[in-house]
Amino acid sequence: MDPIVVVDVMGGDFAPSVVIDGIMSAVQADQFLHIIAVGLPDAISSLEGVERVTCVGASQVIAMDEHPAHAIRSKKDSSIVVGCKLVKSGDAQGFFSAGSTGAVMAAATLGIGRLKKVSRPVLATVLPAIDTPVILGDIGANADCKPDYLVQFALMMQAYATTVLEVKKPRVRLLNIGEEETKGSQFAQECFALLKESVPHFEGNIEGKEILTSMTDIIVTDGFTGNITLKTLEGTSRIVLDQVKAALTANLFSKLYAAPLAGQVRKLKEEMDPDQFGGAPLLGTKGVVVIGHGSSSALAISNGIQVTATAIRNELTNKVASALSED
Amino acid sequence: MDPIVVVDVMGGDFAPSVVIDGIMSAVQADQFLHIIAVGLPDAISSLEGVERVTCVGASQVIAMDEHPAHAIRSKKDSSIVVGCKLVKSGDAQGFFSAGSTGAVMAAATLGIGRLKKVSRPVLATVLPAIDTPVILGDIGANADCKPDYLVQFALMMQAYATTVLEVKKPRVRLLNIGEEETKGSQFAQECFALLKESVPHFEGNIEGKEILTSMTDIIVTDGFTGNITLKTLEGTSRIVLDQVKAALTANLFSKLYAAPLAGQVRKLKEEMDPDQFGGAPLLGTKGVVVIGHGSSSALAISNGIQVTATAIRNELTNKVASALSED
Repeated sequence: MDPIVVVDVMGGDFAPSVVIDGIMSAVQADQFLHIIAVGLPDAISSLEGVERVTCVGASQVIAMDEHPAHAIRSKKDSSIVVGCKLVKSGDAQGFFSAGSTGAVMAAATLGIGRLKKVSRPVLATVLPAIDTPVILGDIGANADCKPDYLVQFALMMQAYATTVLEVKKPRVRLLNIGEEETKGSQFAQECFALLKESVPHFEGNIEGKEILTSMTDIIVTDGFTGNITLKTLEGTSRIVLDQVKAALTANLFSKLYAAPLAGQVRKLKEEMDPDQFGGAPLLGTKGVVVIGHGSSSALAISNGIQVTATAIRNELTNKVASALSED
Repeated sequence: MDPIVVVDVMGGDFAPSVVIDGIMSAVQADQFLHIIAVGLPDAISSLEGVERVTCVGASQVIAMDEHPAHAIRSKKDSSIVVGCKLVKSGDAQGFFSAGSTGAVMAAATLGIGRLKKVSRPVLATVLPAIDTPVILGDIGANADCKPDYLVQFALMMQAYATTVLEVKKPRVRLLNIGEEETKGSQFAQECFALLKESVPHFEGNIEGKEILTSMTDIIVTDGFTGNITLKTLEGTSRIVLDQVKAALTANLFSKLYAAPLAGQVRKLKEEMDPDQFGGAPLLGTKGVVVIGHGSSSALAISNGIQVTATAIRNELTNKVASALSED
């Protein structure tokens, strides 16, 4: 069966235009992909008649800065809520949005529903580390966690690693402030003990300085620590690259020499761009949900849609469910 | 009265040689500075007879990987324990070491003792942000915190900012996962409420991506989050700069053009080097304590000693004490 992905045409800072471009590019790249484009009638009109694209109107849009829970309750005909309903009803198997992360998480958890045995869905992201990519989660779905949530997060991310990134035996580490089992907060120590007991290929702690070193496939943490870590990493990387650019063009002399190198630095920026991995999967709901950066480009949207399709083809939802039922 | 700083000659990956160089450079830079150099007799012998340097022998050394609490109990004649005793006895007003952070924290807290009203000393660090430096703490002294600890941390870091960095009204923000007061874990929300009530110039939350933007003078957090944040920041910055270097020298063509730019990138690396700020102050003990990076160079050691001296001259210890008694 060909994968059917619902796409939120209104999601993202540059919606709807880049989303429409992303949809066009995705259906061209994958000739078996079907898309249901959800958005304001005006926004989706240009997609009418495109092969393998079905348009579904929604009369409302949830803005980036709206309170998530309130927004999904008060805007029942928004593209995000309508999109999740189409997955819930079985019209599609996955949902991609570059809209408000909080609203998508809330709509997906309530609208699509959690898989049996899932205490809390986990929001993960794929980081471009030195050699192999690394999956980090939770990056913000759950600010307060219990140790057994982290076990579930690890197992669900392992299902994602095998299904979407084709990692055979995904290694897991716990984000902590030292290598030894006895390091860290009381919470971290309890998590360590449970992970050691319940998660295959759990290899101990990992420190902040090692996140990008590819020494593991999966880094598990609570949503508070994970969100701060991810944003610190993104912010630092951006600021350092900006400083490099400024240093290289500090004077006419260095400008002359730096000009031919601009391409190398740009290429590096692209290699380190998380958008290449197509967004953040929300794992634990009864359907595939992938959330793109608000600042997503058309390429990032297209990648995100294709990752959603890959996850559907490789039965991510079933794999997540069975990872937890074996637990 | 001239400042007297105890220096742990055995502390750091390149001790004793770089520490001795650092001591020589510090006494040359500051003609009123007195140093008590503590270490193995062989290690300190070259300092005998140096003006304004007093040598004190210690027969033991605490290694970087020893269990801190166990090490300070079992090695009572180590340079770290002896150094702290010299502050406790009043022979010196401050202690600098680039040795094991855990051992120095433990020895200082137990050996020098906490100031009245201090629940837990805080380990802080000064980060080179875009415009003005930013103080981040706790970076690892307290993995488990209560909300009122963070109020004390903020007040103690404010005393450091005014005393050592000469910031007049140090602005404080809480490291969190969103801007609004209602964001974050239960713990973060409780901290927000207390900080708002008790800390002058508290300006709300700050996210991970904003740490280096100089939008605040002080960032307060618990030691678990702070340690992971700091290490993520250092690790990311190092890896990005390494990648830039690799990209710039990827082929003969770019190598030719990049060679004259190497100086710019090196300068940038130095500007972003936390060593320029002389190490991490441990605030809340009855004496000035500054802990250097294990990998400290002679320059970093010299800076660390001079920061310790500045803190003594400007009466950091009294300022920290009175910041808490006004609370």
